[in-house]
Amino acid sequence: MPHNSYLVGLIGSGIGPSLSPALHEREADRQGLRCLYRLIDIDTLGVGPEAVGDLVRAARDLGFDGLNITHPCKQLVIGHLDELSVGAEALGAVNTVVFEGGRAIGHNTDVTGFAASFARGLPDVALERVVQLGAGGAGAAVAHAVLTLGAGHITVVDAMPGRAADLAAVLNRHFGEGRAAAATPDALGSLLARADGIVHATPTGMAAHPGLPFPAELLHPGLWVAEVVYRPLETELLRTARALGCATLDGGGMAVFQAADAFRLFTGREPDSARMLADIAELAGAAGARS
Amino acid sequence: MPHNSYLVGLIGSGIGPSLSPALHEREADRQGLRCLYRLIDIDTLGVGPEAVGDLVRAARDLGFDGLNITHPCKQLVIGHLDELSVGAEALGAVNTVVFEGGRAIGHNTDVTGFAASFARGLPDVALERVVQLGAGGAGAAVAHAVLTLGAGHITVVDAMPGRAADLAAVLNRHFGEGRAAAATPDALGSLLARADGIVHATPTGMAAHPGLPFPAELLHPGLWVAEVVYRPLETELLRTARALGCATLDGGGMAVFQAADAFRLFTGREPDSARMLADIAELAGAAGARS
Repeated sequence: MPHNSYLVGLIGSGIGPSLSPALHEREADRQGLRCLYRLIDIDTLGVGPEAVGDLVRAARDLGFDGLNITHPCKQLVIGHLDELSVGAEALGAVNTVVFEGGRAIGHNTDVTGFAASFARGLPDVALERVVQLGAGGAGAAVAHAVLTLGAGHITVVDAMPGRAADLAAVLNRHFGEGRAAAATPDALGSLLARADGIVHATPTGMAAHPGLPFPAELLHPGLWVAEVVYRPLETELLRTARALGCATLDGGGMAVFQAADAFRLFTGREPDSARMLADIAELAGAAGARS
Repeated sequence: MPHNSYLVGLIGSGIGPSLSPALHEREADRQGLRCLYRLIDIDTLGVGPEAVGDLVRAARDLGFDGLNITHPCKQLVIGHLDELSVGAEALGAVNTVVFEGGRAIGHNTDVTGFAASFARGLPDVALERVVQLGAGGAGAAVAHAVLTLGAGHITVVDAMPGRAADLAAVLNRHFGEGRAAAATPDALGSLLARADGIVHATPTGMAAHPGLPFPAELLHPGLWVAEVVYRPLETELLRTARALGCATLDGGGMAVFQAADAFRLFTGREPDSARMLADIAELAGAAGARS
Protein backbone atom coordinates (compact mmCIF):
# COMPACT_ATOMS: atom_id res chain seq x y z
CA MET A 1 0.00 0.00 0.00
CA PRO A 2 1.44 3.40 -0.90
CA HIS A 3 2.14 5.41 2.21
CA ASN A 4 1.26 8.79 0.75
CA SER A 5 -2.37 7.88 0.17
CA TYR A 6 -5.17 6.39 2.17
CA LEU A 7 -8.56 5.03 1.30
CA VAL A 8 -11.10 4.76 4.10
CA GLY A 9 -14.85 4.66 4.54
CA LEU A 10 -17.72 4.62 7.02
CA ILE A 11 -20.09 1.65 7.30
CA GLY A 12 -23.44 2.30 8.94
CA SER A 13 -27.10 3.18 8.50
CA GLY A 14 -28.39 6.61 7.52
CA ILE A 15 -24.92 8.12 7.34
CA GLY A 16 -25.49 10.48 4.42
CA PRO A 17 -25.01 13.65 6.52
CA SER A 18 -21.78 12.43 8.18
CA LEU A 19 -19.03 15.01 8.50
CA SER A 20 -16.31 12.35 8.65
CA PRO A 21 -15.44 12.51 4.91
CA ALA A 22 -14.83 16.26 5.14
CA LEU A 23 -12.90 16.04 8.44
CA HIS A 24 -10.52 13.35 7.13
CA GLU A 25 -10.10 14.69 3.61
CA ARG A 26 -9.42 18.28 4.75
CA GLU A 27 -6.77 17.22 7.26
CA ALA A 28 -5.20 14.84 4.72
CA ASP A 29 -5.07 17.64 2.14
CA ARG A 30 -3.25 19.90 4.59
CA GLN A 31 -0.74 17.11 5.24
CA GLY A 32 -0.22 16.45 1.53
CA LEU A 33 -1.79 12.99 1.75
CA ARG A 34 -3.99 11.67 -1.03
CA CYS A 35 -7.17 10.60 0.78
CA LEU A 36 -10.62 9.41 -0.18
CA TYR A 37 -13.30 8.77 2.44
CA ARG A 38 -16.36 6.90 1.15
CA LEU A 39 -19.77 6.47 2.78
CA ILE A 40 -20.97 2.85 2.71
CA ASP A 41 -24.61 3.05 3.80
CA ILE A 42 -26.26 -0.31 4.42
CA ASP A 43 -29.70 1.29 3.83
CA THR A 44 -28.65 2.46 0.37
CA LEU A 45 -27.20 -0.99 -0.34
CA GLY A 46 -30.40 -2.66 0.87
CA VAL A 47 -28.56 -5.01 3.22
CA GLY A 48 -28.88 -5.65 6.94
CA PRO A 49 -26.35 -4.85 9.69
CA GLU A 50 -25.07 -8.45 9.53
CA ALA A 51 -23.56 -7.62 6.11
CA VAL A 52 -20.82 -5.70 7.92
CA GLY A 53 -18.52 -8.74 7.89
CA ASP A 54 -18.67 -9.11 4.11
CA LEU A 55 -18.21 -5.37 3.66
CA VAL A 56 -15.13 -5.32 5.91
CA ARG A 57 -13.54 -8.23 4.03
CA ALA A 58 -14.35 -6.62 0.68
CA ALA A 59 -12.83 -3.31 1.78
CA ARG A 60 -9.64 -5.08 2.84
CA ASP A 61 -9.43 -6.89 -0.52
CA LEU A 62 -10.07 -3.74 -2.57
CA GLY A 63 -7.26 -1.74 -1.01
CA PHE A 64 -8.94 0.20 1.80
CA ASP A 65 -6.53 1.18 4.60
CA GLY A 66 -9.26 1.20 7.20
CA LEU A 67 -12.89 1.85 8.06
CA ASN A 68 -15.00 3.69 10.53
CA ILE A 69 -18.00 1.73 11.80
CA THR A 70 -21.15 3.24 13.23
CA HIS A 71 -24.70 2.33 14.24
CA PRO A 72 -25.94 -0.40 13.96
CA CYS A 73 -22.72 -2.31 13.27
CA LYS A 74 -20.32 -1.39 16.11
CA GLN A 75 -20.92 -4.61 18.06
CA LEU A 76 -21.64 -6.89 15.09
CA VAL A 77 -18.33 -6.10 13.42
CA ILE A 78 -16.31 -7.59 16.29
CA GLY A 79 -16.89 -11.17 15.16
CA HIS A 80 -15.21 -10.38 11.84
CA LEU A 81 -11.97 -8.87 13.15
CA ASP A 82 -8.59 -10.47 13.81
CA GLU A 83 -7.66 -8.41 16.85
CA LEU A 84 -9.12 -5.81 19.23
CA SER A 85 -7.52 -2.92 21.09
CA VAL A 86 -7.83 -3.06 24.87
CA GLY A 87 -10.31 -0.19 24.85
CA ALA A 88 -12.52 -1.70 22.16
CA GLU A 89 -12.52 -5.03 23.94
CA ALA A 90 -13.51 -3.44 27.26
CA LEU A 91 -16.36 -1.53 25.64
CA GLY A 92 -17.47 -4.35 23.36
CA ALA A 93 -17.80 -1.91 20.48
CA VAL A 94 -15.58 -0.90 17.56
CA ASN A 95 -15.81 2.35 15.59
CA THR A 96 -12.46 2.08 13.76
CA VAL A 97 -10.94 -0.82 11.84
CA VAL A 98 -7.35 -0.67 10.58
CA PHE A 99 -6.02 -3.11 7.97
CA GLU A 100 -2.44 -4.09 8.66
CA GLY A 101 -0.81 -6.76 6.53
CA GLY A 102 -4.16 -8.35 5.68
CA ARG A 103 -5.33 -8.36 9.33
CA ALA A 104 -8.30 -6.32 10.54
CA ILE A 105 -7.75 -4.66 13.93
CA GLY A 106 -10.59 -3.02 15.85
CA HIS A 107 -10.29 0.15 17.92
CA ASN A 108 -12.68 2.54 19.61
CA THR A 109 -11.90 6.21 19.18
CA ASP A 110 -15.27 7.31 20.55
CA VAL A 111 -13.82 6.56 24.00
CA THR A 112 -10.43 8.16 23.39
CA GLY A 113 -12.06 11.01 21.44
CA PHE A 114 -14.43 11.98 24.24
CA ALA A 115 -11.64 11.70 26.79
CA ALA A 116 -9.37 13.97 24.74
CA SER A 117 -12.13 16.50 24.19
CA PHE A 118 -13.03 16.52 27.90
CA ALA A 119 -9.43 16.89 29.04
CA ARG A 120 -9.00 19.82 26.68
CA GLY A 121 -12.35 21.57 27.26
CA LEU A 122 -13.00 20.98 30.96
CA PRO A 123 -9.49 20.38 32.31
CA ASP A 124 -9.98 21.32 35.95
CA VAL A 125 -13.51 20.34 36.85
CA ALA A 126 -14.45 18.10 39.78
CA LEU A 127 -15.16 14.48 38.87
CA GLU A 128 -16.28 12.98 42.15
CA ARG A 129 -19.93 12.50 41.27
CA VAL A 130 -20.89 12.42 37.59
CA VAL A 131 -24.36 11.87 36.21
CA GLN A 132 -24.83 10.67 32.68
CA LEU A 133 -28.09 10.75 30.75
CA GLY A 134 -28.22 8.11 28.02
CA ALA A 135 -27.00 4.49 28.06
CA GLY A 136 -27.03 3.73 24.31
CA GLY A 137 -23.99 3.18 22.12
CA ALA A 138 -22.59 6.71 22.49
CA GLY A 139 -23.44 6.61 26.20
CA ALA A 140 -21.46 3.42 26.75
CA ALA A 141 -18.37 4.91 25.06
CA VAL A 142 -18.65 8.17 26.98
CA ALA A 143 -19.15 6.47 30.36
CA HIS A 144 -15.99 4.41 29.76
CA ALA A 145 -14.16 7.63 28.93
CA VAL A 146 -15.43 9.41 32.06
CA LEU A 147 -14.23 6.63 34.37
CA THR A 148 -10.96 6.37 32.44
CA LEU A 149 -10.50 10.11 33.12
CA GLY A 150 -10.66 9.29 36.83
CA ALA A 151 -14.25 10.04 37.80
CA GLY A 152 -15.04 8.76 41.31
CA HIS A 153 -18.56 7.60 40.56
CA ILE A 154 -20.96 7.72 37.63
CA THR A 155 -24.72 7.28 37.72
CA VAL A 156 -26.14 6.22 34.38
CA VAL A 157 -29.70 7.41 33.80
CA ASP A 158 -31.85 6.06 31.00
CA ALA A 159 -35.56 5.80 30.27
CA MET A 160 -34.91 2.10 29.62
CA PRO A 161 -33.90 0.83 33.09
CA GLY A 162 -32.45 -2.47 31.84
CA ARG A 163 -30.08 -0.68 29.48
CA ALA A 164 -28.83 1.58 32.27
CA ALA A 165 -28.39 -1.36 34.65
CA ASP A 166 -26.50 -3.37 32.03
CA LEU A 167 -24.10 -0.51 31.36
CA ALA A 168 -23.53 0.09 35.07
CA ALA A 169 -22.74 -3.60 35.52
CA VAL A 170 -20.21 -3.55 32.68
CA LEU A 171 -18.57 -0.43 34.12
CA ASN A 172 -18.32 -1.93 37.61
CA ARG A 173 -16.80 -5.08 36.19
CA HIS A 174 -14.22 -3.15 34.23
CA PHE A 175 -13.37 -0.24 36.55
CA GLY A 176 -14.10 -1.84 39.97
CA GLU A 177 -17.24 -2.40 42.01
CA GLY A 178 -18.98 0.73 43.32
CA ARG A 179 -17.85 3.03 40.51
CA ALA A 180 -21.17 3.00 38.64
CA ALA A 181 -24.90 2.86 39.38
CA ALA A 182 -28.07 2.99 37.31
CA ALA A 183 -31.12 5.22 37.77
CA THR A 184 -34.30 6.27 36.02
CA PRO A 185 -35.05 9.83 34.86
CA ASP A 186 -37.36 10.58 37.86
CA ALA A 187 -34.22 10.51 40.04
CA LEU A 188 -32.43 13.18 37.96
CA GLY A 189 -33.43 16.06 40.26
CA SER A 190 -31.91 14.60 43.39
CA LEU A 191 -28.89 13.24 41.50
CA LEU A 192 -28.04 16.60 39.90
CA ALA A 193 -28.51 18.46 43.17
CA ARG A 194 -25.38 16.75 44.54
CA ALA A 195 -23.46 16.09 41.29
CA ASP A 196 -20.30 17.79 39.98
CA GLY A 197 -21.42 17.54 36.40
CA ILE A 198 -23.60 15.87 33.81
CA VAL A 199 -22.81 14.23 30.54
CA HIS A 200 -25.66 14.32 28.05
CA ALA A 201 -25.66 11.32 25.68
CA THR A 202 -29.13 11.17 24.10
CA PRO A 203 -30.19 12.59 20.70
CA THR A 204 -32.27 15.39 22.26
CA GLY A 205 -31.13 18.77 20.99
CA MET A 206 -30.42 17.60 17.45
CA ALA A 207 -32.39 19.28 14.68
CA ALA A 208 -34.71 16.26 14.49
CA HIS A 209 -35.16 16.14 18.29
CA PRO A 210 -35.22 19.77 19.45
CA GLY A 211 -35.64 20.87 23.04
CA LEU A 212 -34.14 20.09 26.43
CA PRO A 213 -33.48 16.49 27.61
CA PHE A 214 -34.72 17.37 31.14
CA PRO A 215 -36.37 20.37 32.83
CA ALA A 216 -34.16 23.46 32.91
CA GLU A 217 -34.78 23.94 36.64
CA LEU A 218 -32.71 20.84 37.43
CA LEU A 219 -29.59 22.73 36.30
CA HIS A 220 -27.59 24.82 38.78
CA PRO A 221 -24.43 26.93 38.48
CA GLY A 222 -22.28 24.37 40.33
CA LEU A 223 -22.64 21.82 37.51
CA TRP A 224 -20.45 21.37 34.47
CA VAL A 225 -22.38 20.17 31.40
CA ALA A 226 -20.81 18.05 28.66
CA GLU A 227 -22.78 17.42 25.46
CA VAL A 228 -22.43 14.60 22.93
CA VAL A 229 -24.72 16.16 20.29
CA TYR A 230 -22.71 18.27 17.83
CA ARG A 231 -25.29 19.27 15.26
CA PRO A 232 -25.97 21.96 16.21
CA LEU A 233 -22.84 22.69 18.22
CA GLU A 234 -24.88 24.97 20.48
CA THR A 235 -27.79 22.86 21.75
CA GLU A 236 -30.60 24.26 23.87
CA LEU A 237 -29.07 22.41 26.85
CA LEU A 238 -25.70 24.12 26.41
CA ARG A 239 -27.29 27.54 25.86
CA THR A 240 -29.40 27.17 29.00
CA ALA A 241 -26.48 25.89 31.08
CA ARG A 242 -24.13 28.64 29.90
CA ALA A 243 -26.71 31.29 30.75
CA LEU A 244 -26.77 29.89 34.28
CA GLY A 245 -22.98 30.12 34.55
CA CYS A 246 -22.19 26.41 34.11
CA ALA A 247 -18.89 25.34 32.53
CA THR A 248 -19.84 23.60 29.28
CA LEU A 249 -18.35 21.33 26.62
CA ASP A 250 -19.99 20.98 23.22
CA GLY A 251 -20.11 17.76 21.19
CA GLY A 252 -17.83 19.05 18.44
CA GLY A 253 -14.71 18.12 20.39
CA MET A 254 -15.70 14.45 20.65
CA ALA A 255 -16.55 14.39 16.93
CA VAL A 256 -13.16 15.91 16.09
CA PHE A 257 -11.00 13.88 18.45
CA GLN A 258 -12.59 10.55 17.47
CA ALA A 259 -11.79 11.49 13.86
CA ALA A 260 -8.30 12.70 14.79
CA ASP A 261 -7.58 9.46 16.68
CA ALA A 262 -8.84 7.43 13.70
CA PHE A 263 -6.71 9.56 11.36
CA ARG A 264 -3.64 8.73 13.45
CA LEU A 265 -4.48 5.01 13.36
CA PHE A 266 -5.15 5.03 9.59
CA THR A 267 -2.12 7.07 8.54
CA GLY A 268 0.44 6.85 11.31
CA ARG A 269 0.62 10.65 11.19
CA GLU A 270 -0.22 13.18 13.86
CA PRO A 271 -3.35 15.20 12.97
CA ASP A 272 -3.63 18.87 13.86
CA SER A 273 -6.71 18.81 16.08
CA ALA A 274 -6.87 22.60 16.35
CA ARG A 275 -7.36 22.88 12.60
CA MET A 276 -9.93 20.06 12.72
CA LEU A 277 -11.85 21.89 15.47
CA ALA A 278 -12.03 24.92 13.19
CA ASP A 279 -13.29 22.64 10.41
CA ILE A 280 -16.10 21.21 12.50
CA ALA A 281 -17.21 24.64 13.68
CA GLU A 282 -17.56 25.58 10.01
CA LEU A 283 -19.05 22.26 8.87
CA ALA A 284 -21.51 21.78 11.74
CA GLY A 285 -22.53 25.41 11.45
CA ALA A 286 -23.18 25.01 7.74
CA ALA A 287 -25.01 21.75 8.31
CA GLY A 288 -27.12 23.36 11.02
CA ALA A 289 -28.00 26.22 8.73
CA ARG A 290 -29.13 23.78 6.05
CA SER A 291 -31.39 21.73 8.30
CA MET B 1 -21.40 10.04 -5.23
CA PRO B 2 -19.54 13.34 -4.97
CA HIS B 3 -18.62 14.66 -8.39
CA ASN B 4 -15.31 16.18 -7.38
CA SER B 5 -13.75 12.87 -6.43
CA TYR B 6 -13.36 9.49 -7.98
CA LEU B 7 -12.29 6.13 -6.68
CA VAL B 8 -11.15 3.55 -9.21
CA GLY B 9 -8.97 0.48 -9.35
CA LEU B 10 -7.43 -2.15 -11.58
CA ILE B 11 -8.33 -5.84 -11.25
CA GLY B 12 -5.90 -8.33 -12.75
CA SER B 13 -2.94 -10.60 -12.18
CA GLY B 14 0.64 -9.43 -11.63
CA ILE B 15 -0.29 -5.76 -11.93
CA GLY B 16 2.16 -4.35 -9.38
CA PRO B 17 4.20 -2.40 -11.97
CA SER B 18 1.11 -0.83 -13.63
CA LEU B 19 1.44 2.85 -14.55
CA SER B 20 -2.35 3.35 -14.47
CA PRO B 21 -2.45 4.69 -10.88
CA ALA B 22 0.08 7.38 -11.72
CA LEU B 23 -1.52 8.28 -15.07
CA HIS B 24 -4.98 8.73 -13.54
CA GLU B 25 -3.93 10.38 -10.29
CA ARG B 26 -1.62 12.89 -12.02
CA GLU B 27 -4.26 13.97 -14.52
CA ALA B 28 -6.89 14.15 -11.76
CA ASP B 29 -4.58 16.31 -9.65
CA ARG B 30 -4.12 18.75 -12.54
CA GLN B 31 -7.89 18.95 -12.94
CA GLY B 32 -8.45 19.52 -9.22
CA LEU B 33 -10.22 16.17 -8.80
CA ARG B 34 -9.71 14.04 -5.70
CA CYS B 35 -8.71 10.64 -7.10
CA LEU B 36 -7.46 7.36 -5.72
CA TYR B 37 -6.52 4.48 -8.02
CA ARG B 38 -6.02 1.15 -6.25
CA LEU B 39 -4.39 -2.04 -7.55
CA ILE B 40 -6.50 -5.13 -6.84
CA ASP B 41 -4.20 -8.03 -7.70
CA ILE B 42 -5.85 -11.45 -7.69
CA ASP B 43 -2.46 -13.09 -7.10
CA THR B 44 -1.93 -11.05 -3.94
CA LEU B 45 -5.47 -11.89 -2.82
CA GLY B 46 -4.90 -15.57 -3.53
CA VAL B 47 -8.06 -15.88 -5.63
CA GLY B 48 -8.64 -17.06 -9.18
CA PRO B 49 -9.78 -15.01 -12.19
CA GLU B 50 -13.37 -16.14 -11.58
CA ALA B 51 -13.39 -13.96 -8.45
CA VAL B 52 -13.70 -10.91 -10.71
CA GLY B 53 -17.50 -10.93 -10.39
CA ASP B 54 -17.41 -10.71 -6.59
CA LEU B 55 -14.72 -8.04 -6.75
CA VAL B 56 -16.73 -5.92 -9.19
CA ARG B 57 -19.85 -6.14 -7.01
CA ALA B 58 -17.84 -5.31 -3.89
CA ALA B 59 -16.27 -2.29 -5.59
CA ARG B 60 -19.70 -1.01 -6.59
CA ASP B 61 -21.00 -1.44 -3.02
CA LEU B 62 -17.98 0.25 -1.44
CA GLY B 63 -18.26 3.44 -3.49
CA PHE B 64 -15.89 2.86 -6.41
CA ASP B 65 -16.82 4.94 -9.47
CA GLY B 66 -15.34 2.42 -11.86
CA LEU B 67 -12.66 -0.18 -12.55
CA ASN B 68 -10.11 -1.09 -15.12
CA ILE B 69 -9.89 -4.79 -15.85
CA THR B 70 -6.88 -6.59 -17.26
CA HIS B 71 -5.49 -10.06 -17.88
CA PRO B 72 -6.86 -12.65 -17.12
CA CYS B 73 -10.28 -11.15 -16.37
CA LYS B 74 -11.25 -9.15 -19.48
CA GLN B 75 -13.57 -11.83 -20.86
CA LEU B 76 -14.68 -13.32 -17.54
CA VAL B 77 -15.97 -9.99 -16.25
CA ILE B 78 -18.58 -9.73 -18.99
CA GLY B 79 -20.97 -12.17 -17.30
CA HIS B 80 -21.12 -9.88 -14.27
CA LEU B 81 -22.03 -6.61 -16.00
CA ASP B 82 -25.42 -5.02 -16.65
CA GLU B 83 -24.61 -3.50 -20.03
CA LEU B 84 -21.84 -3.43 -22.66
CA SER B 85 -20.73 -0.71 -25.04
CA VAL B 86 -20.94 -1.57 -28.74
CA GLY B 87 -17.16 -1.80 -28.97
CA ALA B 88 -16.77 -4.06 -25.94
CA GLU B 89 -19.54 -6.32 -27.21
CA ALA B 90 -17.94 -6.63 -30.65
CA LEU B 91 -14.56 -7.49 -29.13
CA GLY B 92 -15.91 -9.72 -26.38
CA ALA B 93 -13.55 -8.10 -23.88
CA VAL B 94 -13.90 -5.34 -21.30
CA ASN B 95 -11.06 -3.26 -19.86
CA THR B 96 -13.17 -0.53 -18.24
CA VAL B 97 -16.25 -0.79 -16.01
CA VAL B 98 -18.22 2.30 -15.03
CA PHE B 99 -20.75 2.26 -12.19
CA GLU B 100 -23.78 4.39 -12.96
CA GLY B 101 -26.73 4.38 -10.60
CA GLY B 102 -25.85 0.94 -9.27
CA ARG B 103 -25.41 -0.52 -12.78
CA ALA B 104 -22.07 -1.82 -14.08
CA ILE B 105 -21.39 -0.89 -17.71
CA GLY B 106 -18.49 -2.43 -19.65
CA HIS B 107 -16.36 -0.58 -22.18
CA ASN B 108 -13.15 -1.28 -24.06
CA THR B 109 -10.70 1.60 -24.24
CA ASP B 110 -7.87 -0.61 -25.55
CA VAL B 111 -9.62 -0.41 -28.93
CA THR B 112 -10.42 3.31 -28.80
CA GLY B 113 -7.03 4.02 -27.21
CA PHE B 114 -5.02 2.33 -29.95
CA ALA B 115 -7.17 3.99 -32.62
CA ALA B 116 -6.63 7.43 -31.09
CA SER B 117 -2.89 6.85 -30.75
CA PHE B 118 -2.61 5.63 -34.35
CA ALA B 119 -4.66 8.51 -35.77
CA ARG B 120 -2.42 10.94 -33.91
CA GLY B 121 0.96 9.29 -34.53
CA LEU B 122 0.59 7.89 -38.06
CA PRO B 123 -2.13 10.12 -39.53
CA ASP B 124 -1.39 9.79 -43.25
CA VAL B 125 -0.07 6.26 -43.74
CA ALA B 126 -1.50 3.76 -46.24
CA LEU B 127 -3.82 1.16 -44.73
CA GLU B 128 -4.62 -1.09 -47.66
CA ARG B 129 -2.63 -4.12 -46.48
CA VAL B 130 -1.82 -4.41 -42.79
CA VAL B 131 0.01 -7.27 -41.12
CA GLN B 132 -0.38 -7.84 -37.40
CA LEU B 133 1.86 -10.08 -35.32
CA GLY B 134 0.10 -11.39 -32.20
CA ALA B 135 -3.49 -12.59 -31.76
CA GLY B 136 -3.77 -12.54 -27.96
CA GLY B 137 -5.89 -10.16 -25.91
CA ALA B 138 -4.01 -7.01 -26.90
CA GLY B 139 -3.86 -8.25 -30.48
CA ALA B 140 -7.63 -8.70 -30.67
CA ALA B 141 -8.21 -5.14 -29.43
CA VAL B 142 -5.65 -3.67 -31.79
CA ALA B 143 -6.96 -5.58 -34.84
CA HIS B 144 -10.45 -4.24 -34.15
CA ALA B 145 -8.98 -0.75 -33.94
CA VAL B 146 -7.08 -1.13 -37.23
CA LEU B 147 -10.18 -2.17 -39.14
CA THR B 148 -12.24 0.51 -37.43
CA LEU B 149 -9.66 3.02 -38.67
CA GLY B 150 -10.50 1.87 -42.22
CA ALA B 151 -7.77 -0.64 -43.04
CA GLY B 152 -8.61 -2.51 -46.23
CA HIS B 153 -7.28 -5.89 -45.11
CA ILE B 154 -5.46 -7.28 -42.10
CA THR B 155 -3.50 -10.52 -41.88
CA VAL B 156 -3.19 -11.79 -38.32
CA VAL B 157 -0.01 -13.78 -37.70
CA ASP B 158 0.46 -15.88 -34.58
CA ALA B 159 2.61 -18.84 -33.61
CA MET B 160 -0.64 -20.45 -32.42
CA PRO B 161 -2.54 -20.93 -35.72
CA GLY B 162 -5.90 -21.59 -34.07
CA ARG B 163 -5.77 -18.32 -32.19
CA ALA B 164 -5.00 -16.38 -35.36
CA ALA B 165 -7.77 -18.13 -37.29
CA ASP B 166 -10.30 -17.49 -34.52
CA LEU B 167 -9.48 -13.79 -34.44
CA ALA B 168 -9.66 -13.50 -38.23
CA ALA B 169 -13.08 -15.18 -38.18
CA VAL B 170 -14.36 -12.74 -35.55
CA LEU B 171 -13.03 -9.79 -37.54
CA ASN B 172 -14.66 -11.00 -40.77
CA ARG B 173 -17.97 -11.50 -38.98
CA HIS B 174 -17.87 -8.01 -37.53
CA PHE B 175 -16.28 -5.95 -40.32
CA GLY B 176 -17.38 -7.97 -43.39
CA GLU B 177 -16.05 -11.06 -45.12
CA GLY B 178 -12.66 -10.75 -46.77
CA ARG B 179 -11.30 -8.07 -44.44
CA ALA B 180 -9.13 -10.44 -42.37
CA ALA B 181 -7.01 -13.56 -42.83
CA ALA B 182 -4.77 -15.68 -40.60
CA ALA B 183 -1.20 -16.79 -41.20
CA THR B 184 1.75 -18.41 -39.42
CA PRO B 185 5.10 -16.70 -38.78
CA ASP B 186 6.84 -18.46 -41.69
CA ALA B 187 4.68 -16.38 -44.05
CA LEU B 188 5.85 -13.05 -42.53
CA GLY B 189 8.53 -12.43 -45.17
CA SER B 190 6.20 -12.58 -48.16
CA LEU B 191 3.43 -10.76 -46.26
CA LEU B 192 5.67 -7.85 -45.26
CA ALA B 193 7.16 -7.55 -48.74
CA ARG B 194 3.80 -6.33 -50.03
CA ALA B 195 2.34 -4.75 -46.84
CA ASP B 196 1.84 -1.07 -46.01
CA GLY B 197 2.61 -1.59 -42.36
CA ILE B 198 2.87 -3.94 -39.42
CA VAL B 199 1.34 -3.82 -35.95
CA HIS B 200 3.38 -5.65 -33.34
CA ALA B 201 1.22 -7.10 -30.56
CA THR B 202 3.37 -9.69 -28.75
CA PRO B 203 5.40 -9.18 -25.54
CA THR B 204 8.75 -9.36 -27.37
CA GLY B 205 10.79 -6.26 -26.71
CA MET B 206 9.71 -5.86 -23.09
CA ALA B 207 12.47 -5.98 -20.50
CA ALA B 208 11.58 -9.60 -19.69
CA HIS B 209 11.44 -10.58 -23.40
CA PRO B 210 14.22 -8.61 -25.10
CA GLY B 211 15.04 -8.82 -28.77
CA LEU B 212 13.24 -8.60 -32.08
CA PRO B 213 9.94 -10.42 -32.74
CA PHE B 214 11.09 -11.37 -36.26
CA PRO B 215 14.33 -11.09 -38.30
CA ALA B 216 15.39 -7.50 -39.00
CA GLU B 217 15.84 -8.26 -42.72
CA LEU B 218 12.06 -8.60 -43.15
CA LEU B 219 11.72 -4.85 -42.51
CA HIS B 220 11.95 -2.39 -45.41
CA PRO B 221 11.66 1.41 -45.65
CA GLY B 222 8.19 1.30 -47.21
CA LEU B 223 6.63 -0.12 -44.02
CA TRP B 224 5.17 1.76 -41.08
CA VAL B 225 5.67 -0.04 -37.76
CA ALA B 226 3.26 0.31 -34.82
CA GLU B 227 4.25 -1.14 -31.46
CA VAL B 228 2.03 -2.21 -28.54
CA VAL B 229 4.89 -2.69 -26.02
CA TYR B 230 5.50 0.53 -24.04
CA ARG B 231 8.08 -0.53 -21.48
CA PRO B 232 10.53 0.42 -22.80
CA LEU B 233 9.02 3.02 -25.11
CA GLU B 234 11.89 2.44 -27.55
CA THR B 235 11.90 -1.28 -28.31
CA GLU B 236 14.55 -2.95 -30.42
CA LEU B 237 11.93 -3.30 -33.18
CA LEU B 238 11.23 0.45 -33.23
CA ARG B 239 14.93 1.32 -33.09
CA THR B 240 15.68 -1.00 -36.00
CA ALA B 241 12.71 0.22 -38.05
CA ARG B 242 13.50 3.90 -37.47
CA ALA B 243 17.11 3.35 -38.55
CA LEU B 244 15.74 1.95 -41.82
CA GLY B 245 13.58 5.04 -42.36
CA CYS B 246 10.23 3.48 -41.42
CA ALA B 247 7.50 5.65 -39.88
CA THR B 248 6.98 4.31 -36.35
CA LEU B 249 4.50 4.51 -33.48
CA ASP B 250 5.51 3.52 -29.96
CA GLY B 251 3.21 1.79 -27.47
CA GLY B 252 3.06 4.75 -25.11
CA GLY B 253 0.26 6.35 -27.08
CA MET B 254 -2.04 3.34 -26.70
CA ALA B 255 -1.25 3.19 -22.97
CA VAL B 256 -2.07 6.87 -22.59
CA PHE B 257 -5.18 7.00 -24.75
CA GLN B 258 -6.74 3.90 -23.17
CA ALA B 259 -6.20 5.63 -19.81
CA ALA B 260 -7.47 8.96 -21.16
CA ASP B 261 -10.61 7.32 -22.57
CA ALA B 262 -11.19 5.54 -19.24
CA PHE B 263 -10.64 8.85 -17.40
CA ARG B 264 -13.34 10.46 -19.55
CA LEU B 265 -15.74 7.56 -18.83
CA PHE B 266 -15.01 7.60 -15.07
CA THR B 267 -15.18 11.36 -14.56
CA GLY B 268 -17.17 12.84 -17.44
CA ARG B 269 -14.27 15.27 -17.90
CA GLU B 270 -11.97 15.74 -20.86
CA PRO B 271 -8.41 14.62 -20.07
CA ASP B 272 -5.42 16.48 -21.49
CA SER B 273 -3.76 13.70 -23.46
CA ALA B 274 -0.69 15.81 -24.30
CA ARG B 275 0.11 16.12 -20.58
CA MET B 276 -0.54 12.40 -20.11
CA LEU B 277 1.86 11.58 -22.97
CA ALA B 278 4.54 13.60 -21.17
CA ASP B 279 3.72 11.63 -18.01
CA ILE B 280 4.18 8.26 -19.66
CA ALA B 281 7.46 9.28 -21.25
CA GLU B 282 8.69 10.11 -17.75
CA LEU B 283 7.10 7.10 -16.04
CA ALA B 284 7.99 4.46 -18.62
CA GLY B 285 11.49 5.89 -18.82
CA ALA B 286 11.88 5.68 -15.06
CA ALA B 287 10.40 2.18 -14.97
CA GLY B 288 12.72 1.10 -17.77
CA ALA B 289 15.71 2.50 -15.91
CA ARG B 290 14.75 0.51 -12.81
CA SER B 291 14.32 -2.80 -14.60
